[in-house]
Amino acid sequence: MKASLQTYAARYRKDLLESVIPFWLKHSPDREFGGYFTCLDRDGAVYDTRKYVWLQGRMVWMFSKLYNELEQRPEWLEMANLGAGFIRRYARDPKGRCYFSLTREGSPSFYQRKPYAAVFVMMGLLENSKATGDAEMRAEAVELFWSIREWIAKPELMDRPVFPGSPAVSSLADVMVVASMAMELAAISDDPRYGEIMRECLAAALLHYDPQRRILMENSPLTDTPEGRLFCPGSSLEVAWFLLHILQRYPDDARQRQVLEIIEGSLEFGWDGEYGGLYYFMDVGGHPTLQLESSMKLWWPHTEALYSVLLAYSISGDEKWLLWLERLDTYAYKHFADPVYGEWFAYCDRQGNLTHTLKGNNYKGSFHVPRFLLLSTQFV
Amino acid sequence: MKASLQTYAARYRKDLLESVIPFWLKHSPDREFGGYFTCLDRDGAVYDTRKYVWLQGRMVWMFSKLYNELEQRPEWLEMANLGAGFIRRYARDPKGRCYFSLTREGSPSFYQRKPYAAVFVMMGLLENSKATGDAEMRAEAVELFWSIREWIAKPELMDRPVFPGSPAVSSLADVMVVASMAMELAAISDDPRYGEIMRECLAAALLHYDPQRRILMENSPLTDTPEGRLFCPGSSLEVAWFLLHILQRYPDDARQRQVLEIIEGSLEFGWDGEYGGLYYFMDVGGHPTLQLESSMKLWWPHTEALYSVLLAYSISGDEKWLLWLERLDTYAYKHFADPVYGEWFAYCDRQGNLTHTLKGNNYKGSFHVPRFLLLSTQFV
Repeated sequence: MKASLQTYAARYRKDLLESVIPFWLKHSPDREFGGYFTCLDRDGAVYDTRKYVWLQGRMVWMFSKLYNELEQRPEWLEMANLGAGFIRRYARDPKGRCYFSLTREGSPSFYQRKPYAAVFVMMGLLENSKATGDAEMRAEAVELFWSIREWIAKPELMDRPVFPGSPAVSSLADVMVVASMAMELAAISDDPRYGEIMRECLAAALLHYDPQRRILMENSPLTDTPEGRLFCPGSSLEVAWFLLHILQRYPDDARQRQVLEIIEGSLEFGWDGEYGGLYYFMDVGGHPTLQLESSMKLWWPHTEALYSVLLAYSISGDEKWLLWLERLDTYAYKHFADPVYGEWFAYCDRQGNLTHTLKGNNYKGSFHVPRFLLLSTQFV
Repeated sequence: MKASLQTYAARYRKDLLESVIPFWLKHSPDREFGGYFTCLDRDGAVYDTRKYVWLQGRMVWMFSKLYNELEQRPEWLEMANLGAGFIRRYARDPKGRCYFSLTREGSPSFYQRKPYAAVFVMMGLLENSKATGDAEMRAEAVELFWSIREWIAKPELMDRPVFPGSPAVSSLADVMVVASMAMELAAISDDPRYGEIMRECLAAALLHYDPQRRILMENSPLTDTPEGRLFCPGSSLEVAWFLLHILQRYPDDARQRQVLEIIEGSLEFGWDGEYGGLYYFMDVGGHPTLQLESSMKLWWPHTEALYSVLLAYSISGDEKWLLWLERLDTYAYKHFADPVYGEWFAYCDRQGNLTHTLKGNNYKGSFHVPRFLLLSTQFV
């Protein structure tokens, strides 16, 4: 087992250091105004100069993490700091919430009634403060964490009106982002509340469990509505490996077995048996989805699946994971990886034909691909 | 020329009366709570009971229009009234704006920071008031028209904050909906303001003109940004036939020639030479689009194209339109029309494979298909 894991992990480390990071370091930084261009075409050409706050935060996090955990390369820290300064100056609105997008210069452009821009700003600042030792930045991240908890509990604080006709649901994405922030905070703080929140998130995530299919559904409770029937294989797999990380901190064998079932169930139900690859969205009742792009194959469910499977294999040693690892790796490197210009493409149709030549846009930056590759280096 | 037009128009009339209207009359009305189910699968099965306000308004308009202009069938008026009562009771919020969606029972579910729900409520109520003679309903529609004008001019009234980093642009959709409302109002009122607004819309739409490609761009001014480079063949063609209708009221030969160029340019630039069909979105600079579904083939650009071409042919008599008519008709009836259960499918991938089995959802109801078919009956 160890040899196979090492073989994959060594290749992923090489992809990270020789293809993925160089692509972003070369094309993404805006040395004039700070922050990062993320709308990059195949060869790195910028086709939109706006700064998308989710991705500014995610890339500050990513390059800080690489510096903190892989190697203390000065160019990685400099890259991280370029975005950290930019988001500290421009990302937040007068109420302390975060914009969705800014102009190249940092002027507010769009506000989304969702917590995720703030989540990734928080994650970026926290990780950057670990690299720089900036206590003020760290305090800013901690304060933002507690605000985000409040915004998720009271969406009207994000200007999202709450109506009688849309009862509150638990969204898997919300559970996941709170868990991931709490996990990062617990690593640097003795505050017992972070551990409590992580355990809450573990319990909350498992309320999304569909025992028949062994998957995590996108919204809980599992009502017979398009939202209640919605399954996103990528989310289910991403949450599964987060839960395994939480369970490494708070061991529980029965729960761990359940999460391994979730990984297997998500792969089995989410895999397209005809054309290969993981679907983006599915209605588990077999009804049409409201999302037009459901049957498309996106890069990030595949990175999340790959890391889930590596982790499941390292935990259980069961050879069945190796079959999934080969299948996912083959699909991802055939369809998404770009050996010519580096990094990965993002979008294929169901049949696996590339629909866009882009390497980044308003939702793809330097995040899922390098995070998966970095996480894999633990197995080298 | 006349014979060809008549042949197509007769077939479209048959499709309207024997396939499309029966499908909606059978599966869509909610006789218990009022309004219409629009999330209908291939065979008419309801997979989401929510009431989407764009479509409630559009269907009130459609069935009232059929009653007013095709035949005074009591079941069409009854169908129209079922939705009119529902939207008058439930569609508007305490500030008089319109919700995006309601529960089956009419309780508010979601609010979209856009004017379109209100636009279609206004159109539905106005057309229904023509059928029923309800003066109060008509006054409600007129009042809503003037509110919508104000909301478009001041988006903050729709809770859409205006930021320095997103300068106001003219959206082709906004120009189109104002023009279409004004056109309907001018038909029943002597108020000279409606004519002025129509002429303003004509001028505003032509500010979207790209002379190199002879198309209407989605946003004006035509900046080198994803928004400024965005072309939606369906919008360009839909606006073109609206402009031809305005020009029938305010004749101007040079303008009419320009609009015929727009129809031809949109078809030439928007048509997929490899797999057939009109693209959903395109970046005219050849850059990636931010929309994932850009290369998909949707039903409604094809209905708008078909009517544009019928109208262009009837105006100019030029045989070149007949080639486009054949091409579009063949594509649409091969990929979208469903001879088994009636109505049209909605979504194909670029290659023309159906991606969803649905006949309706939160954006497709009984509107584009029957409107195109009804408009075509003028040529029978």
